[in-house]
Amino acid sequence: MNLYFLGTGASVPTKQRNMTSIALQLYQERGTFFLIDAGEGTQHQMLHSPLRLSRLEKILITHMHGDHILGLPGVLGSRATEGVTKPLTIYGPPGIQSFIDFFLTIRKSGLTYPLTIVEVQPGVIFEDHKMIITAKQLAHTIPSYGYRFQEKDRPGELLQQKLKDDGIAQSPLFSRLKAGEDVTLPNGQTLHSETYTGPPKRGHSVVICGDTSPTPAVIELAQQADVLVHESTYAHHEHVKALQRGHSTASHAAQTALAAKVKTLIITHISARYDENASLQLLLEARSLFPHTYLANDHFSYDIGDE
Amino acid sequence: MNLYFLGTGASVPTKQRNMTSIALQLYQERGTFFLIDAGEGTQHQMLHSPLRLSRLEKILITHMHGDHILGLPGVLGSRATEGVTKPLTIYGPPGIQSFIDFFLTIRKSGLTYPLTIVEVQPGVIFEDHKMIITAKQLAHTIPSYGYRFQEKDRPGELLQQKLKDDGIAQSPLFSRLKAGEDVTLPNGQTLHSETYTGPPKRGHSVVICGDTSPTPAVIELAQQADVLVHESTYAHHEHVKALQRGHSTASHAAQTALAAKVKTLIITHISARYDENASLQLLLEARSLFPHTYLANDHFSYDIGDE
Repeated sequence: MNLYFLGTGASVPTKQRNMTSIALQLYQERGTFFLIDAGEGTQHQMLHSPLRLSRLEKILITHMHGDHILGLPGVLGSRATEGVTKPLTIYGPPGIQSFIDFFLTIRKSGLTYPLTIVEVQPGVIFEDHKMIITAKQLAHTIPSYGYRFQEKDRPGELLQQKLKDDGIAQSPLFSRLKAGEDVTLPNGQTLHSETYTGPPKRGHSVVICGDTSPTPAVIELAQQADVLVHESTYAHHEHVKALQRGHSTASHAAQTALAAKVKTLIITHISARYDENASLQLLLEARSLFPHTYLANDHFSYDIGDE
Repeated sequence: MNLYFLGTGASVPTKQRNMTSIALQLYQERGTFFLIDAGEGTQHQMLHSPLRLSRLEKILITHMHGDHILGLPGVLGSRATEGVTKPLTIYGPPGIQSFIDFFLTIRKSGLTYPLTIVEVQPGVIFEDHKMIITAKQLAHTIPSYGYRFQEKDRPGELLQQKLKDDGIAQSPLFSRLKAGEDVTLPNGQTLHSETYTGPPKRGHSVVICGDTSPTPAVIELAQQADVLVHESTYAHHEHVKALQRGHSTASHAAQTALAAKVKTLIITHISARYDENASLQLLLEARSLFPHTYLANDHFSYDIGDE
């Protein structure tokens, strides 16, 4: 798992920050990536990144404000212009269906791939054998979601030495044993998976929130996550404005990270009023409360691994 | 008058070319600029240009394809976020009203300035004491317009030497004389404007076309214009594909410029298949038929003056 920040600004672009879009790279896990939000210029930012539209599997929209969705038609259109045929699923709040329908009407030439659109209700929105995605509504001026991407635990290592010690010869059945299955050898001996595999490997988890004021919903959604990506539109001295507009300060983000007991906090969605130096002040503000914080800049890449 | 190219690519962005948007700068003439088309990322390109949204007076959309309009909501929204209060008028083909209405519904927070939307019919779409704008329908897969911006002729120079020779003392009334008005001096003497002013100064003209196959419509619209901005999506060897898709080659653009007897041709809307070297081949192709041709790259600026 890797996070790649395509855009880290708020409502308007600056020379340094495009509007919000974050890629969750899952190349090792599933050969694809997910996109969370797609502000105007997302496809342009992608040209300067390792991400390719042919690998895009899912798009999750947090909320229907322009700085989070106006790049979506371009992403969908260019994915078709490139001739990609792999299916794509989009998850988003109510309104996402009519937004996309409107663009497909204008586009006329259609898409080259099957497109599924899911208007999200809070709860589990996707599950397969590797991952669960959960949505939770946050506290903004319009419905805004946070998404938790929870990898399922993976089977433990095969205990090669124990198999050897027990005099069991190497067998092609070991891969099924490792995958958690009990197997019977040609000689009739049954091997129990739990005897010959180590403890399961903990799946990683990342939570990416849309625009929000501080709310218990994020604390619940992000419990003990490896990484929490949280907006930090303002600095603490603008906290009144932040709350009035449904946003958070760097301090709010840090307090939420503390309460949720996450391992790492990444702050993003930085207002255009903060230049490079002022953005660093936001980082220091958050770190004074939650030391393991990073500030996302455009093209910041973060590997989520065991630390 | 000056042309500033914000985007010179075709349907998808490349690292070198954003999607179509052209600014007609009229800072000397009216203190404002017009924007012709607004592909995704237009407001981003503007950040790296001398153009400011506070000076934007009119937007003219040539046609309703995504690569010409998906930056429009961002331009409108950011102009409001910046707090600009000056009115803005948008001209475009049928469909432009519902396109903008859709975005204003999503935006919710409204605009800070009066917005007028005009769905264009062929003919004169705007006229004041300085300029006439004419629209003409071209030949594309959907309705696509070309716009001619025709400055009106300006009064000639005041003939200072002749006034002096005729023994007429300097007077504040000379400014009215210069503006074309006959004036009567305090001594009762009447001065005729045409006696004391030189020939009127010819107004400049520029024609900017939307996507089109070669058509007599452009030749009529661009008659003897100072500058014709014409699409050149393809090179000559792809002329069959160009015509099938409602586009032009560099040769088509040059032939049109010749037939319309324009002074200068600028080719733009270059397909992503042509890299920097291949784009130069398009320029050479056009120049072999019409020598006074320029190739527009992003941030190319061209002053329209007397040559």
